[in-house]
Amino acid sequence: MGTPDRPLSRRRLLGGGALAVGGGVVGAGLTHAGAATDTPPATPPAQPLGTQTVPFFGAHQAGIDTPAQAHAVFLAFDLLDGVDRAALGRMMRLLTDDAARLTQGRPALADTEPELAVVPARLTVTFGFGPKVFAAAGVETQRPRSLEPLPAFPIDKLQPRWTGGDLLIQICADDPLTVTHTQRMLIKDTRAFGRLRWTQRGFRRGRGMQDDGVTQRNVMGQLDGTRNPPLGSPVFDGAVWVDSGPRWLHGGTTVVVRRIRAELETWDAADPTAKEFAVGRRLSDGAPLTGVAEHDEPDLTKTNELGFTVISESAHIARAHVRSDRQRIFRRPYNYDDAPAPDGTSDAGLIFAAYQRDIGSQFLPIQRNLAENDLLNDWITPIGSAVFAVPPGCREGEWVGQSLLG
Amino acid sequence: MGTPDRPLSRRRLLGGGALAVGGGVVGAGLTHAGAATDTPPATPPAQPLGTQTVPFFGAHQAGIDTPAQAHAVFLAFDLLDGVDRAALGRMMRLLTDDAARLTQGRPALADTEPELAVVPARLTVTFGFGPKVFAAAGVETQRPRSLEPLPAFPIDKLQPRWTGGDLLIQICADDPLTVTHTQRMLIKDTRAFGRLRWTQRGFRRGRGMQDDGVTQRNVMGQLDGTRNPPLGSPVFDGAVWVDSGPRWLHGGTTVVVRRIRAELETWDAADPTAKEFAVGRRLSDGAPLTGVAEHDEPDLTKTNELGFTVISESAHIARAHVRSDRQRIFRRPYNYDDAPAPDGTSDAGLIFAAYQRDIGSQFLPIQRNLAENDLLNDWITPIGSAVFAVPPGCREGEWVGQSLLG
Ligand code: HEM
Ligand code: HEM
Repeated sequence: MGTPDRPLSRRRLLGGGALAVGGGVVGAGLTHAGAATDTPPATPPAQPLGTQTVPFFGAHQAGIDTPAQAHAVFLAFDLLDGVDRAALGRMMRLLTDDAARLTQGRPALADTEPELAVVPARLTVTFGFGPKVFAAAGVETQRPRSLEPLPAFPIDKLQPRWTGGDLLIQICADDPLTVTHTQRMLIKDTRAFGRLRWTQRGFRRGRGMQDDGVTQRNVMGQLDGTRNPPLGSPVFDGAVWVDSGPRWLHGGTTVVVRRIRAELETWDAADPTAKEFAVGRRLSDGAPLTGVAEHDEPDLTKTNELGFTVISESAHIARAHVRSDRQRIFRRPYNYDDAPAPDGTSDAGLIFAAYQRDIGSQFLPIQRNLAENDLLNDWITPIGSAVFAVPPGCREGEWVGQSLLG
Repeated sequence: MGTPDRPLSRRRLLGGGALAVGGGVVGAGLTHAGAATDTPPATPPAQPLGTQTVPFFGAHQAGIDTPAQAHAVFLAFDLLDGVDRAALGRMMRLLTDDAARLTQGRPALADTEPELAVVPARLTVTFGFGPKVFAAAGVETQRPRSLEPLPAFPIDKLQPRWTGGDLLIQICADDPLTVTHTQRMLIKDTRAFGRLRWTQRGFRRGRGMQDDGVTQRNVMGQLDGTRNPPLGSPVFDGAVWVDSGPRWLHGGTTVVVRRIRAELETWDAADPTAKEFAVGRRLSDGAPLTGVAEHDEPDLTKTNELGFTVISESAHIARAHVRSDRQRIFRRPYNYDDAPAPDGTSDAGLIFAAYQRDIGSQFLPIQRNLAENDLLNDWITPIGSAVFAVPPGCREGEWVGQSLLG
């Protein structure tokens, strides 16, 4: 195990057939709780959306190349002193077993509210290991070279309560109560091993509210995700799944989780032209300022009658763009919206989760570019930051992280 | 205006036809954004669920007899010193206009993110006035007699940050981003008049995840809502809509919003029999301990071979039951699930919203009964409490609260 199993991945990705709601968009990796897994349904399912499941076992962990579910919670734990390789192995065995059951709509072994487990709603559970896990487990040589806390950027206002962590559990589902139940069952099984460092709960548009597969708007009102590598495409596979470096991580990936506050009060005060200029795309339909439709290729060299580029060199999409497909990142952000201040000031923004083979050669250069100069920086502030290695998936009978800790 | 307009109410409630997802259950008051309102669609709608709208204008405010949407936020504001009847009127005019637009999928007048307004997702906005509003507006004689802070109960551990408030805005929609956007637009228009006292965000099962109309489980795993007065039934109308006392409130109602923490750690440790005994119903299917199906009438007098009642006299449903339909309350609770403590202890429970004609003769006796003796009290703790008068609905050109403040 540990090497990317491409045929399986392709089957997982394309086996689900069309979705029940909305037209034309193909769903990825969906089966139905109770139905035989991996049999593509011939007709759209008549069951409620909550019965849909995403396979747990496979070459890659689910929750990355899974079309983003409506709700997510990101949990980061600090390991207790003395938790070593053997203890980590015990923990991951427990957690893998919980996740394998819950994602398929079955109660966890020690489930105290088994009635809440029956609405899997495309539940996925994805595990990651922070930089300090490798020393704790005595496998420091297995740490991917660039898996370390990001350097400080001048734009950062990082708060310790949103930063760092040794174990990441990312729980995503189309149903918020499913997320709640899963979170509670998994936290129980971490108690002997770690303490919760932070919890970040987020959301996207509810499932079925819009046609599946349309680009969603974020809390700032922008269409967000237009130029992501398409799920399951060769570009996605080449950018996201690790295929060099420490062998245990092949077929896995890395994730950067940044909590980025949106300065919505000043954003609201800005005029639409300034907002569009900052990103380089239109608010109405997400088209690049040099095009007419959302998926038109932005022309970063096109100039106006004054000789300036139409898309500013300081626009977010100009600064974030990379030329090589291997350098791209895959963004899977969720909105957060916590209680506003008494004067009404929002506490909202993005839980910005980005997946890539290698943080050092993919995420970092982009983040450096943006930190140095990005018109959008006037309205966004990173307040949390954490990095994790995301082990490959496993087969039935195995557990996530076994290639490192087993 | 101000008197209950029953034919309109009935049309609102039954005009929507069958829902797109799930079988057999009739949806209430649904129309589609962009479609002519109030024309019952002949066939189930093919549009995404996010296009569905609930009429804003009508005899009653929407969001009470509306089948509960998946997401909600309850916002309570303290009025600024000096905000009088005229100022309150200006505020309610603004807020009514915002709500009338946003609920129909149209941007608010001063909407800074108009693109976010196009997914109404059955959005409703419901306004309520706290006890102090009447003195502030110089209309103290118009205060419903029992609209005052609830007396302290021995079970209470009320925290000021979840208690009280002068203006309630309840925002409900099937989409979480719609709730976020609506909240932000409405808060802006309160800024000159009040400060946000508390924000409580909650959720139920996602729309479409289960068949519409099935009783949902709460965060404790119980089927919750079984014995609520059915929406739009004569029992509902007689229990919820005010038909005596101050004339301005006829066709309106009152709401009690209690934040009730669920002690999930000890609840998890309890065995299923004890949990079922505490409520008087089975966890698996919600059937009363004296019956076989969820909607069987509980028999509170039935005894076992030892002569004890099968449903304990201290069981939640025995203590909460009232004999007269006029004394019933309508419960419309949402789950909350905030960040757990570092040791994993949950911070979850119910935002318990109950609607009734009269707090004094309906809510209070039930709450007193429960506070005095209810087996469920071992696992639930009220930590917040607030009461509001909910004005009747209004017609186009009018505003909510006009019968009191106009
Ligand atoms: C709150 C913070 C952020 C917001 C609101 C935001 C918003 C956007 C928007 C609206 C687009 C254009 C549509 C699209 O292709 O998705 C975009 C593109 C992009 N963003 Fe961000 N972004 C944020 C932070 C970041 C960060 C921290 C990174 C990486 C370090 C990043 C990397 C990218 C990339 C790579 C693209 C695609 C560029 C291209 O090739 O066209 N963004 N972002
Ligand atoms: C976290 C707090 C609470 C929980 C978890 C809870 C749970 C339940 C459950 C499971 C039922 C049975 C199913 C049903 O008919 O809905 C029920 C019934 C009921 N509850 Fe509660 N409840 C809570 C608080 C309250 C409060 C504060 C009140 C009123 C003051 C209340 C009033 C009622 C009433 C009137 C019934 C129906 C009784 C009948 O006629 O059968 N509940 N509750």
